[in-house]
Amino acid sequence: MSETPFWRGSTSSMCVGWRAGSPQAHGVQQLYFLALAIWIVSTPVVPKKPTYAQLKALFLFPQGIERFRGQYFHSRQYKHPDVFQGKRVLVVGMGNSGVDIAVEASRVAAKVTICTGRGAWVLSRVFDHGYPWDMVFNTRLMSLIRNSLPGPLSRGLINYRVNQWFNHENYGLQPEKSCLVREPVLNDDLPSYILTGRITIKPGVKEFKDSSVVFHNCPEEEPIDIIVFCTGYNVSFPFLEEAVIKVENKHASLYKYVFPTHLQRPTLAVLGLIKPLGAIMPVTEMQARWVTRVFKGLCRLPPQSVMEKEVNEKKKNQVRRFGLSFDEVLKTDCLVYMDKLASFIGAKPSVLGLLWRDPWLALTIFFGPCTPYQYRLGGPGRWEGARQAILTQWDRTLKPTRTRVPAGSSSPCPSLLTVVGFLLLLAAVVFCFQ
Amino acid sequence: MSETPFWRGSTSSMCVGWRAGSPQAHGVQQLYFLALAIWIVSTPVVPKKPTYAQLKALFLFPQGIERFRGQYFHSRQYKHPDVFQGKRVLVVGMGNSGVDIAVEASRVAAKVTICTGRGAWVLSRVFDHGYPWDMVFNTRLMSLIRNSLPGPLSRGLINYRVNQWFNHENYGLQPEKSCLVREPVLNDDLPSYILTGRITIKPGVKEFKDSSVVFHNCPEEEPIDIIVFCTGYNVSFPFLEEAVIKVENKHASLYKYVFPTHLQRPTLAVLGLIKPLGAIMPVTEMQARWVTRVFKGLCRLPPQSVMEKEVNEKKKNQVRRFGLSFDEVLKTDCLVYMDKLASFIGAKPSVLGLLWRDPWLALTIFFGPCTPYQYRLGGPGRWEGARQAILTQWDRTLKPTRTRVPAGSSSPCPSLLTVVGFLLLLAAVVFCFQ
Repeated sequence: MSETPFWRGSTSSMCVGWRAGSPQAHGVQQLYFLALAIWIVSTPVVPKKPTYAQLKALFLFPQGIERFRGQYFHSRQYKHPDVFQGKRVLVVGMGNSGVDIAVEASRVAAKVTICTGRGAWVLSRVFDHGYPWDMVFNTRLMSLIRNSLPGPLSRGLINYRVNQWFNHENYGLQPEKSCLVREPVLNDDLPSYILTGRITIKPGVKEFKDSSVVFHNCPEEEPIDIIVFCTGYNVSFPFLEEAVIKVENKHASLYKYVFPTHLQRPTLAVLGLIKPLGAIMPVTEMQARWVTRVFKGLCRLPPQSVMEKEVNEKKKNQVRRFGLSFDEVLKTDCLVYMDKLASFIGAKPSVLGLLWRDPWLALTIFFGPCTPYQYRLGGPGRWEGARQAILTQWDRTLKPTRTRVPAGSSSPCPSLLTVVGFLLLLAAVVFCFQ
Repeated sequence: MSETPFWRGSTSSMCVGWRAGSPQAHGVQQLYFLALAIWIVSTPVVPKKPTYAQLKALFLFPQGIERFRGQYFHSRQYKHPDVFQGKRVLVVGMGNSGVDIAVEASRVAAKVTICTGRGAWVLSRVFDHGYPWDMVFNTRLMSLIRNSLPGPLSRGLINYRVNQWFNHENYGLQPEKSCLVREPVLNDDLPSYILTGRITIKPGVKEFKDSSVVFHNCPEEEPIDIIVFCTGYNVSFPFLEEAVIKVENKHASLYKYVFPTHLQRPTLAVLGLIKPLGAIMPVTEMQARWVTRVFKGLCRLPPQSVMEKEVNEKKKNQVRRFGLSFDEVLKTDCLVYMDKLASFIGAKPSVLGLLWRDPWLALTIFFGPCTPYQYRLGGPGRWEGARQAILTQWDRTLKPTRTRVPAGSSSPCPSLLTVVGFLLLLAAVVFCFQ
């Protein structure tokens, strides 16, 4: 394999290839290994004056939108909130970009409405103690809880946790009754914007009219000037023959979301075509580590029949008895997925093994965030600094925000005093009830 | 007393007067009763090109600011965030307006720093279950907890509660070691803006330089283009003789924040010159109800010596043994204060009395928010609808935000399942520790 890979890239996709020759036939037989690093791809060309059929094909606009006489566009076409100045805005769809656009719009628009049939859990980036949410949420302990309990119980615990910030039912946000988990919306602004009336949540659209919209279960029409469709993207590989990667229902048939199952040799890989419950960068990095070792011949894929069986099982997206089941095939628990790929290349950390050799590290790995350092403790691409990085990650995360340390910090309340206080309080409630 | 009061108003002050004649002398002996409804007053005239001395007198600008060559102004002069476009902004002071301005600035500025010597507790408007914070915080139960426990314990409990959202120490916000409680900052944006690096918190200013600022305990200078001083206001009564209302240290010597103590008859009252830990409108309404009854002669003030003693005690602003002590004389627990005034006019609700007659109402009053309806259950200005308003206030608060009700709400997790789940989880942690 040549030392320097060549690559072609754009904002929505990038591919990396290596020239490789078999040692037996220098310069005669040459193969190309191709890794497509793809973030959700949609057909990139937007006609200047699209017909409804073109728009629908491109952006999944719903039936009936052609009747609406106001402005409408897809979230991908959104550039700046100025377009909403003084307007009555409807955002269709409540994914992360939908809520981001609604929040920006609400600072200049006359009125902003988000309509969602399915609802979503809204999480704050500011989580326990002020740490970012994924440092608290994506730990091995939390993953164990999510994945070893019976399905309804896992969902019950998740529901309890996400409703601690505020009760989603009170703000009309709660997901519809479903055994399938949706991607959470990470937004700090939405709840207070709903509370202060800047954004209103409505059910899904029933009908588009000339200059208004009717929602399900709402008798009155809502006058609207602009509609933004945040309805997601189609997945497609227009630069490949259809037979190479089969796309069905927004999901490509790939083994572990990476390898086409029916190629004679693993010479093509897709990176990043996955929606992990967490950051996509470490997941894609892990995919790349696995892919390069498969290309090099250091890791072998299972037989075609095994891969196809797994892909077909996944395609059904059935509700699992234990752990979480997701509403889309592309969604997955990133920790479980990364552990699986890491085990393929021998980089998965063994918490039990570490418990004897380095108990402090083992505990930090188990109870702390699953940062990518964990997959650099051993195996190919091992990094000397990984241990130190894991042990100091909590402190380093908060270093940029701890920019003011007052002379005397607020005195902690001794636990004895707390107990005495609660007894006093109880007495006060009983005796001073007026 | 004439039926129609006359009034003069501006944005920062308003006064209401009544013409009153004694029945014995129609049109001969006339008195004026005057109620000054004043929200924090500062001398309203700002010269176009003020000297430093003028600015300092007006807005409490600190020593040394004259050296700074960039732009600087007081929060009162702030109109629109456009002035911060692409600039490095320093906001001095961390009250509610300081943080509001910093948040708005951070959306357009190159960099925003807030400096604060004293720090502050930051609360979200979105409180438990999504109710507004004061509905949860200002209840009779919470007031009992705050005011009946020993001072350190009250503060300890408050500290614990306000740090539940995020640990203030981790974001450099925690108040300096002090036994005096500061007004909380109500802001939903600040924590996430600190976490994402849009706003930085720094200690108080040590020195102003030509185009930069040096902070206490920070060796390096911070380059700054614009400084906004959110350092509060002076209280003054420029339209009254100095002897009528004595102003000292941002605080006027008034009995219960309302009546000058040394007038022969109570003919002058000041409304709204108070900083309650909650909304000022119901507090000012209660003051007005008391004032009109004093003017009418239906309520009597205590002897001058008693009033003066109380005012002088308050002026010392000593740390109390029980309950909270505030950092400013003007600050007070609004529920305790309103109850006191309500008891003067006979409108204070008796929870104990109600417990026998109307237990559901009594419990709602004790555990629910102290909305002004409570002072309309009896006494002068009694309102028939008060009971119904109190019993329905929780539902009515959330009616405007419950705008989407999905067909099937998310299934609640049965408690038995939860117990079983936790046992399973415990087993999983013990046996699957890898």
